[in-house]
Amino acid sequence: MKQSQLFTKTERFAPKDEEAVNAKLLTRAGFIKKIAAGVYAYLPFGLRVIQKISNIVREEMNTIGGEELLMTTLVPKSYWDASHRWDVKEMFKMESERGEHMGLGWTHEEPIAHTAMQYIQSYKDLPKAIYQIAIKFRDEPRAKSGLLRGREFLMKDLYSFHASKKDLDAYYNVVIEAYKKVFRRLSLDAKVTEAGGGPFTKEYTHEFQVLSPQGEDALFYCEKCDFSQNKEIANPVNPPAGGHGAGVKSGDTCPKCGGKIKEGHGIEVGNVFKLGTRYSEAFNLKYLTKEGKKEFVVMGSYGIGISRLMGTLVEVFHDEKGMMWSEAAAPFKVHLLQIGDSASVKKQAENVYEELRKAGMEVLFDDRDVPAGEKFADADLLGIPYRAVVSEKTGEKIELKKRVEEKTELVSLLKLLAM
Amino acid sequence: MKQSQLFTKTERFAPKDEEAVNAKLLTRAGFIKKIAAGVYAYLPFGLRVIQKISNIVREEMNTIGGEELLMTTLVPKSYWDASHRWDVKEMFKMESERGEHMGLGWTHEEPIAHTAMQYIQSYKDLPKAIYQIAIKFRDEPRAKSGLLRGREFLMKDLYSFHASKKDLDAYYNVVIEAYKKVFRRLSLDAKVTEAGGGPFTKEYTHEFQVLSPQGEDALFYCEKCDFSQNKEIANPVNPPAGGHGAGVKSGDTCPKCGGKIKEGHGIEVGNVFKLGTRYSEAFNLKYLTKEGKKEFVVMGSYGIGISRLMGTLVEVFHDEKGMMWSEAAAPFKVHLLQIGDSASVKKQAENVYEELRKAGMEVLFDDRDVPAGEKFADADLLGIPYRAVVSEKTGEKIELKKRVEEKTELVSLLKLLAM
Repeated sequence: MKQSQLFTKTERFAPKDEEAVNAKLLTRAGFIKKIAAGVYAYLPFGLRVIQKISNIVREEMNTIGGEELLMTTLVPKSYWDASHRWDVKEMFKMESERGEHMGLGWTHEEPIAHTAMQYIQSYKDLPKAIYQIAIKFRDEPRAKSGLLRGREFLMKDLYSFHASKKDLDAYYNVVIEAYKKVFRRLSLDAKVTEAGGGPFTKEYTHEFQVLSPQGEDALFYCEKCDFSQNKEIANPVNPPAGGHGAGVKSGDTCPKCGGKIKEGHGIEVGNVFKLGTRYSEAFNLKYLTKEGKKEFVVMGSYGIGISRLMGTLVEVFHDEKGMMWSEAAAPFKVHLLQIGDSASVKKQAENVYEELRKAGMEVLFDDRDVPAGEKFADADLLGIPYRAVVSEKTGEKIELKKRVEEKTELVSLLKLLAM
Repeated sequence: MKQSQLFTKTERFAPKDEEAVNAKLLTRAGFIKKIAAGVYAYLPFGLRVIQKISNIVREEMNTIGGEELLMTTLVPKSYWDASHRWDVKEMFKMESERGEHMGLGWTHEEPIAHTAMQYIQSYKDLPKAIYQIAIKFRDEPRAKSGLLRGREFLMKDLYSFHASKKDLDAYYNVVIEAYKKVFRRLSLDAKVTEAGGGPFTKEYTHEFQVLSPQGEDALFYCEKCDFSQNKEIANPVNPPAGGHGAGVKSGDTCPKCGGKIKEGHGIEVGNVFKLGTRYSEAFNLKYLTKEGKKEFVVMGSYGIGISRLMGTLVEVFHDEKGMMWSEAAAPFKVHLLQIGDSASVKKQAENVYEELRKAGMEVLFDDRDVPAGEKFADADLLGIPYRAVVSEKTGEKIELKKRVEEKTELVSLLKLLAM
C-alpha cells in the first residue's frame, strides 16, 4: 500500500480529550477515531489490526471445535426477562416504533440458549461449542481508557454445552489452554487469575490478566510461578471452591510454589465462566439422557476482548516515540521508506516495493514527498515491526531495522524477501 | 466438516410465522434464526454464505481503490443534527445513562464526512474512497420478507470524495462497473435501473434491481437491451436529468434500442448516489484548490445489501426441494454423502472426505446415521452445488450430481479432486 494514497494521515499531537496512552497513540497514528466517549471507529490500519487479532482467535476457537456464528445486536426484552437480566444497568435499552422494548447485546447467553433449544434434544447432540466475533454494547459510566473500556467494543464470546458438569470441567481446561495460545501468539503474558464467580457459581472463575499500570484490576501474583489471584477475592467470607484458597496478599508465600507474592495491576483480556445450568434453567434447555431421563444442559461461556486486546498491545508495547506492533498483530510486516527523491532512489524503492508485494509480503510504502525526518518519525509512531530504508547511501542494498531494536543492517533484496 | 458434529440440524417444516421463501428455506436449513421481526442471527452455514458474499464485494471494492474501515453503531445526535436527519423515523434512537441521545447507524454519511474533515485539506488529498461492511439498523414498520427487508442487516457502504463534479461522475461509472462484476460473480442478473434521487439531487440515481416476484419495486425494463427504469419516476412532473427521459410504460418502445418495454418487480440489491456537496456543506468539509481557493468536497455514496443478497440468491435460485447455491456463494462446494454403513463404504467415504479436505476443497460430509432418503432430502434442501455419493453401488467410484441438474455420473476420486 502506498502511503501517499492513504485516506488517513498521522498527527503530531494527541487529542486533548484522551487520557490513555492507547487512545493517544492510536488516534495520532490514524488507527481509530473517537465518535463518542468509549465509542471508536476503526480506520483502515486499525481495522487491519482488529482482523489480525480476530483471525488468531478464530483459528484457536476452530481448533477446539468451535463453530462460528453471528447473533444479533437487537435482543427483545422477553429474552432478558427469562433470565431476569432486563434490569442490568449497563444494558442500552430502547423502544421500537411498534412499541417493542429491546436491549443491545452486551453478552448473548439468552439468545444462544434459546437457539440451542432448537438443536439440542439428546445426549447425542452433546457436547457442542459455538462462538461469535461481534460488536457488543455496554453503557459504562466511565469510559476513559480508550479501547480498554468501551461502550461499543468487539468481543469474541464462546458458549459450550455439555451433558455433565464433568464434561464442562474438562472443556473449561481445553479453553484455558486455547486462550493461552492466543495470548502467546500475540506476545502477551496473560496471567490465568483466580477470581470470584459472581452470583452464578460458587467456584472460582478465571480471568486472563496482562500486567500493566493501566489495568483496573488489582492482582496478587507470584513472582516465580504462574499463580495469580484477583484482589477482590483475597478475603471473602466464603472463599470459592476449586482454587488455591483465599487470603494471599503482597509479601505472602505463594500457596503453589512457595515463591513471593507481589501486587500489581492487570488488564482483563479474557475470562472463562462455568455457567452450569443457570441459563438452561431459564430457557428450559433440557436433553434426553441415554437412560431416557430429561436433564438440564450444562453450559460454559468464555470471552476475549478483541478491541481491548488492541488497546492492551499498545499499552504494553510502546515507547516515547510510538507503538511497537508484534508481527502477529501488525497492520503490515514491513514499512518501506524512500529517503531522497533522485531518479535512482525512486526507481530502486519502487522496485523493492513491487518485489515485496509480489512475494506476498504486507508492506506499507512511504513514497510521500515529505522530509526524511517526518518519515522516520511516522515509522516510529506507526510501529510496523520492520523498517526498510532505500536512499542514496544504501546503493543496491536496503537498510533494515527492527522497531524494537536500535541497530540497523544493510541487507540484500533477496535477504529481505526471505524474511 | 462432518455433519454428525454440527450445531444445527435441518427441519422438515417451515416456521409458521414466515411468509417469504428465503426465510422459510434458510430457517429450515439452519442457516438463520429469527430473533425478532426483521432481526435474524446467522448460524454457521448462513455466516459462511455472508462471508463469501462479503469477500467478493471486498475484492471488487479494493480493486477500485476503496480502503476498508469500520464506523460505529452508536452515533450521537449532534452528527444527525448537523445534516438535519435526527428526525428520520426509521432510525432507532435511545438515551444513554448519562443522558446522551444517540441513533443506531442506518447509513454513515455523517460520521464519515466528519472523519474526512480530519484527513482531507487539499486537492492533493483527493480523490479518496472508503467503505465498510457493517451491521445497519432501520426501524421498518413492515419486515415480513425475511432477509429482503431487515431491521438489523448487513450492508456494504462505500463513500467517495472528489475535487469536482466531473471527477465524481467518472468514479460513479467506475463503481457501476464494479457492482456489475459483483452481481455477475454471484450469477445474478441485476438491472441498472434509473431512479429518482430523492431530495438531494436533480439527477437520476441508479438502483441495481434483480427481477423477482418478491421484489417490492415496480420496474419498466426493456426485454431486449439493458434499459430499466423504476416505475416511481415514470411520470414525474420534472424528470431528473442525465437519464433517458421519463414516461415509459409497459408496451412502450424502448428509448434506447427500440425494443419492447415490459413491467416487472425487482429486489434492489444495490444503489449508487451522487451526494454532491450535501454532506460536505453540513460538516463544512472543504479543500484548498491548486489556486488556493476553498471549495466544498464533492461526495458519492454507494450501497450493496449483503444480507439482502443472501435472501435474493435464495429467492432466485431454489426449487420445490430447496435452495440452489451458486459456487461463489455456497457454504461448501461439495456435499459428500455416505449411503450405507458397511465397513467398506464407511472407509471409502472417510477416504474421499480426507482427500478432498487435503486438497483444500470445502466439503460437508454427511456421515450421520440416518436413512438414505433423509440424506438426499437434506442435500437438496441445503443446496450445495455438487453432491458426491459413496455407496455399495458406486464401488471405487463416486456418484456426482450437480444440484441444478438431474443427471448423475460416476467419476474417479482424481476427477473429483480436479474439479
